[in-house]
Amino acid sequence: MDATGAVTRAVAEFAAAYPGVGDEVCVGLSGGPDSLALMACAVRAGLRVRALVVDHGLQAGSDAVASEAVDAARRLGAEATVLAVRVGSAGGMEAAARTARYAALDGARAGRPVLLAHTADDQAETVLLGLARGSGTRSIAGMRPWNPPWGRPLLGVRRSQTLAACAELGLRPHHDPHNRDPRFTRVRVRSEVLPLLDDVLHGGVVDALGRTASTLQDDNDALDALADDLYGRAVIGADCVLPEAELPEAEPPELGAVILDAAVLADAPAALRTRVVRRWLLDVGATEPTHRVIVAVDSLVCDPDSRAQVAIGGDPTARLVATRTGSRLHIARHPR
Amino acid sequence: MDATGAVTRAVAEFAAAYPGVGDEVCVGLSGGPDSLALMACAVRAGLRVRALVVDHGLQAGSDAVASEAVDAARRLGAEATVLAVRVGSAGGMEAAARTARYAALDGARAGRPVLLAHTADDQAETVLLGLARGSGTRSIAGMRPWNPPWGRPLLGVRRSQTLAACAELGLRPHHDPHNRDPRFTRVRVRSEVLPLLDDVLHGGVVDALGRTASTLQDDNDALDALADDLYGRAVIGADCVLPEAELPEAEPPELGAVILDAAVLADAPAALRTRVVRRWLLDVGATEPTHRVIVAVDSLVCDPDSRAQVAIGGDPTARLVATRTGSRLHIARHPR
Repeated sequence: MDATGAVTRAVAEFAAAYPGVGDEVCVGLSGGPDSLALMACAVRAGLRVRALVVDHGLQAGSDAVASEAVDAARRLGAEATVLAVRVGSAGGMEAAARTARYAALDGARAGRPVLLAHTADDQAETVLLGLARGSGTRSIAGMRPWNPPWGRPLLGVRRSQTLAACAELGLRPHHDPHNRDPRFTRVRVRSEVLPLLDDVLHGGVVDALGRTASTLQDDNDALDALADDLYGRAVIGADCVLPEAELPEAEPPELGAVILDAAVLADAPAALRTRVVRRWLLDVGATEPTHRVIVAVDSLVCDPDSRAQVAIGGDPTARLVATRTGSRLHIARHPR
Repeated sequence: MDATGAVTRAVAEFAAAYPGVGDEVCVGLSGGPDSLALMACAVRAGLRVRALVVDHGLQAGSDAVASEAVDAARRLGAEATVLAVRVGSAGGMEAAARTARYAALDGARAGRPVLLAHTADDQAETVLLGLARGSGTRSIAGMRPWNPPWGRPLLGVRRSQTLAACAELGLRPHHDPHNRDPRFTRVRVRSEVLPLLDDVLHGGVVDALGRTASTLQDDNDALDALADDLYGRAVIGADCVLPEAELPEAEPPELGAVILDAAVLADAPAALRTRVVRRWLLDVGATEPTHRVIVAVDSLVCDPDSRAQVAIGGDPTARLVATRTGSRLHIARHPR
């Protein structure tokens, strides 16, 4: 099969596998080879496509690139709109651009799903980048094919196939110089780590990382569902706060703070306890907890005699501390 | 703390964390820096140590290396024995040497646990090698600290620390030339992939891979326990074979073959179904099934109308084929 056929089939199979996608979709279009091939092949697969072209305004001439992408989309039979965004600086340029892009796409999709052109190569890079965080299954499970409203029909398609499809269709993709800039970690994973791993491990690494992501998503789904049940049983009514006297040197928890019954959790396997702890910390207002924080709070769960005060982060006005009283885990807000 | 102190503390904490280890242990001693440091520090941690020195006979002078290791062990206050093994060729030299080594250690341990000197660096290499197989959680969960009779107290200790401990103690470890031979995949992962990943990802990769292994072990334990329960409910009496007439062109299953009730499995999450399928295939005599085979058999589980015949391997005399009749999954043996 030619590359265009392979990419078109991937889109058609994706739409068939997830009926929620429907036949009217948006496509996030950068003008690069992956998204250009996705858009062309989504049209060929019979979908009604509206291309959303985000202009990040980060490089001179980005408006020209965006308007070329719009022209290409219209020639291929899609509607097309440019979304000009302003990229902040929180968390670094890559992260800020990503945040701005997803917000713009979400704001413009008008109830349709948004198809994104991440390929098997992108998935492999994401898994390897997640390994570096070392925060468990969630961080190496990669991207999901369908996480409404976001759809990724090309997770089983190689980047070489999208390039070939563009060539077959006479499309001239834009090659973003950022995609070759070794100051970006992802670029070095792509251009140095993956080729070396593939050589050392005798090939097949991108496929293997894709299978890993997919099976870890299944594992994580099953464990998250069980942990949600367990969390529901471990939560003590949100308005049931401890008397102030039991919280020396701290403000009483805010009304609505969630208290956890450690006795319900103690016999659960570690995989469920740590998931419940993570969800609890997020619910009480912590930022994404590190592995170290989760392990420390899990020790509170498992040790009925623990008097530890576990700092779990907070905000500029207060720090949050988890402690145990009897079988109850609670959070105290200490004003800074 | 000096390196000797750090390694000794790792051994003491390991023994305290796993009471089943006891205070009389064997140590697998190659004479290399990791196992030499482990042995010395196990003695310092107050354990009674018997060093088991495996002579694989693969390199000229291996007997001299073994007897130097024995001398070193005795000087440090351990008993010591050489185990000369003959290495076969099944699965390649590395795998054959490993099989022979574990068999010899198991045969000589006389009821004691065997401590092995795998470090955090070895664990990181194992996780990366497992990623390449892409067969899911199990393959990237790495080595367990305590998998009786095998204990690995140094999974949190870096190789640089065992080397430093040997230097501090005036020990002269043997450096196996195989550990630098780039024809071995593991050697290239160690000497090329991990340093590059660490550079690209700004450090901490060995620790991150260790945390990944540990959380995936927890996930896998929880899911395996649930899958074992489910398997127990899905198995139809082992002596309940289908009538011959329902198995055209095949021998009837052997007495004792296990039949699976797909109806019990159909609503379970994929993570549990695939684990039950794997266990079933192993129980009916298949070799370790690939991801592709597991997915194909899982389709039989999920599709009541499937007429597929899924080849699941076998042996030189017969091939094994999984099929579905009604809600029952069974295995037919087709003589070759």
